[in-house]
Amino acid sequence: MRELISISAALETLLPRMIPAAGEEIDLCEARGRVAFEDVRAHMSIPPFARSPYDGYAFAARDVEGAGKYSPVTLRVVREIAAGSPAGEGIGPGEAVKLMTGAPVPTGADTVVKFETTEFTEEAVSIFEPSSPGRDVIPAGEDVLAGDVIIAKGELIDAAVSGMLAAQGLSRVKVYVRPVAGILSTGSELAGRTELIGDGKIHDSNRYSLGAACAGLGLSVRFIGTRADSPEGIAEAVKKGLEDCDLLLTTGGVSVGDYDYTASASEAAGVGMLVRNVNMKPGGTCAIGMKGEKPVFCLSGNPASSLIAFYVLAQPCLKKLCGHRDPRNPAIQVKLAHGIKKASPKPRLVRGALDLSDGTARLVPHEGQGNGVLRSMKGCNLIGLIPEGSPPQKAGAEITAWLVDSL
Amino acid sequence: MRELISISAALETLLPRMIPAAGEEIDLCEARGRVAFEDVRAHMSIPPFARSPYDGYAFAARDVEGAGKYSPVTLRVVREIAAGSPAGEGIGPGEAVKLMTGAPVPTGADTVVKFETTEFTEEAVSIFEPSSPGRDVIPAGEDVLAGDVIIAKGELIDAAVSGMLAAQGLSRVKVYVRPVAGILSTGSELAGRTELIGDGKIHDSNRYSLGAACAGLGLSVRFIGTRADSPEGIAEAVKKGLEDCDLLLTTGGVSVGDYDYTASASEAAGVGMLVRNVNMKPGGTCAIGMKGEKPVFCLSGNPASSLIAFYVLAQPCLKKLCGHRDPRNPAIQVKLAHGIKKASPKPRLVRGALDLSDGTARLVPHEGQGNGVLRSMKGCNLIGLIPEGSPPQKAGAEITAWLVDSL
Repeated sequence: MRELISISAALETLLPRMIPAAGEEIDLCEARGRVAFEDVRAHMSIPPFARSPYDGYAFAARDVEGAGKYSPVTLRVVREIAAGSPAGEGIGPGEAVKLMTGAPVPTGADTVVKFETTEFTEEAVSIFEPSSPGRDVIPAGEDVLAGDVIIAKGELIDAAVSGMLAAQGLSRVKVYVRPVAGILSTGSELAGRTELIGDGKIHDSNRYSLGAACAGLGLSVRFIGTRADSPEGIAEAVKKGLEDCDLLLTTGGVSVGDYDYTASASEAAGVGMLVRNVNMKPGGTCAIGMKGEKPVFCLSGNPASSLIAFYVLAQPCLKKLCGHRDPRNPAIQVKLAHGIKKASPKPRLVRGALDLSDGTARLVPHEGQGNGVLRSMKGCNLIGLIPEGSPPQKAGAEITAWLVDSL
Repeated sequence: MRELISISAALETLLPRMIPAAGEEIDLCEARGRVAFEDVRAHMSIPPFARSPYDGYAFAARDVEGAGKYSPVTLRVVREIAAGSPAGEGIGPGEAVKLMTGAPVPTGADTVVKFETTEFTEEAVSIFEPSSPGRDVIPAGEDVLAGDVIIAKGELIDAAVSGMLAAQGLSRVKVYVRPVAGILSTGSELAGRTELIGDGKIHDSNRYSLGAACAGLGLSVRFIGTRADSPEGIAEAVKKGLEDCDLLLTTGGVSVGDYDYTASASEAAGVGMLVRNVNMKPGGTCAIGMKGEKPVFCLSGNPASSLIAFYVLAQPCLKKLCGHRDPRNPAIQVKLAHGIKKASPKPRLVRGALDLSDGTARLVPHEGQGNGVLRSMKGCNLIGLIPEGSPPQKAGAEITAWLVDSL
């Protein structure tokens, strides 16, 4: 038997071939969760002017050098500046302005004090302690300087970035187009709409679980349909799917049995296979290739195997298609929250949830790790990797794990 | 000065008043990320029948008790069952069936062997080792038993749950309606569309950052608009906003200055305030109340303060409105990745990112923790809490932190 390709070698083969999608300009209101298509630099500093952090008085710190509790310095209040009003002309020695929160600090003033710490009339304000230049003035550019990169190509647009782009006056932003993922389920056991379930026939679940997983990554999803175990039917569906979609995910028919036609039918449809089975369990039974720039992931028909293979093999590729700068699943060191009774002749993928409650990263393996057990993928946000040839693992054993999105 | 309410006391006041949204039935294809409105139980076991995990032969284990490498037991192959075909009638002693992956195992058979381990013709198969009842048969209900709860009311529908519901033959699911969040920005410094920026005027960023944060929680977002610092204008907008939306978020005008009208204008619009300023920094300046069943969160106009207050105070409330069973931000123990130079006379919220690279949960504080510094909220998925009255913190200090969504 030919040696199986490792997970990392499979990703090394696949990732460089993934070509990110095109760009499109969208409304900033819709940009959350999208990936920036280009660096966006600030064209102005934010805030654009020095401003007051609260209601108070602004003046030159050197004017109150000698101020004290019993020796206040009294300054002449030359005007009031409300938030939204221009700073107006500069102030001179011995002068102060009354400022509202967010109002611009005029030239000549370099410090602000809260009105509660002063005594004031409409014409004058008494200051009871010295200050220093810059104190309690929010300088122009405190948040962003003109020229700063607000978001870099390939980064995700989140709430803060949305606000920072808006502060620049932008109402549109260029993002990567959402690639269209086609999903094709194969297997003669998949029931048609009118067929009875239970005696050999089952409902297709992979279409929905993989569709949801793709949607969670920000892809558009198109269902190609289901096909029985027939080489011609599958080849036709793969061909059609690749015309309509940017990538294809299939399930079923990738083992070595008499009716496992998906890989060969995909090849008949023009797909050049790059990866045929990966050294991991579950989910290792798969065939992954490309037709032109479009990848095709032929995954197992077992519900849990297909979803695990999706997370480990397809997700990094799909994130690269979506434009993500760093598409790989983040790897972290975790302790097993409880033991794994089985030995791992092959690299074993353990699905579970991240527990951080006491400050240590732990993988809590979910009950039911079989190929067909989908319930243990519910809430799965961490997939542990037990190395090839490992004996049973005890609770507390340290392993590497990938953070994956459970949605 | 009246004692300020703590974060936990504010949440204890607010959360019990939050009434989850109504339910609606949607297509299962659209259900990812939505919250289940009711428990969904399996009406059938999955798989619905015992099935074969691979291509092979099924028979009764007792028929091959004496089988060995040099003393095979030969069974009569009575028929072949493809995936999707009925199991048909049971088999008797000395009989076997050829099975394809996923095919049902007929009664009379209780074990399956891979065809590679056998010698076979069309009529007969030789078995070279003993087996045991149940071996390599996937039992009915391995994944789900009829009656099991697939998803509970208030849980998030993820990829696996989507698949499990589909396996039941469901194509629709009942979820909580997305509440509509109205967003109102106040402040005379906010520029209109045609106004020049820079001399006292700024672009509104809060509308976009809070809108994105709401969208990230699964809410619908409606922009009420911007209003200058005028009690009548704000009151009218709050009143109108509460007619159109399920909750309201406002920014600006909640401090104690001459032009801080938002809280009093909201009260004039019929909002009963429940929380007025919270003992935390930044973001503590706020007013939170209800009009009927609709909450109103009046947050600071400072871009970072408003977003932090959103995550700490509003997000748990909004998640409860969205139907989440456990709406609070998960609290974890973390180590500070580097020190905090300032003392914390008030409880200090430190924004940053979770670092798990070496297996210990660390908070990496982002550079720039000021009220107006929005750039440090970019990629923020963790908010640390330094207790009131704490001295400066050294790297490695252990604190509590909340996991928040950065999107």
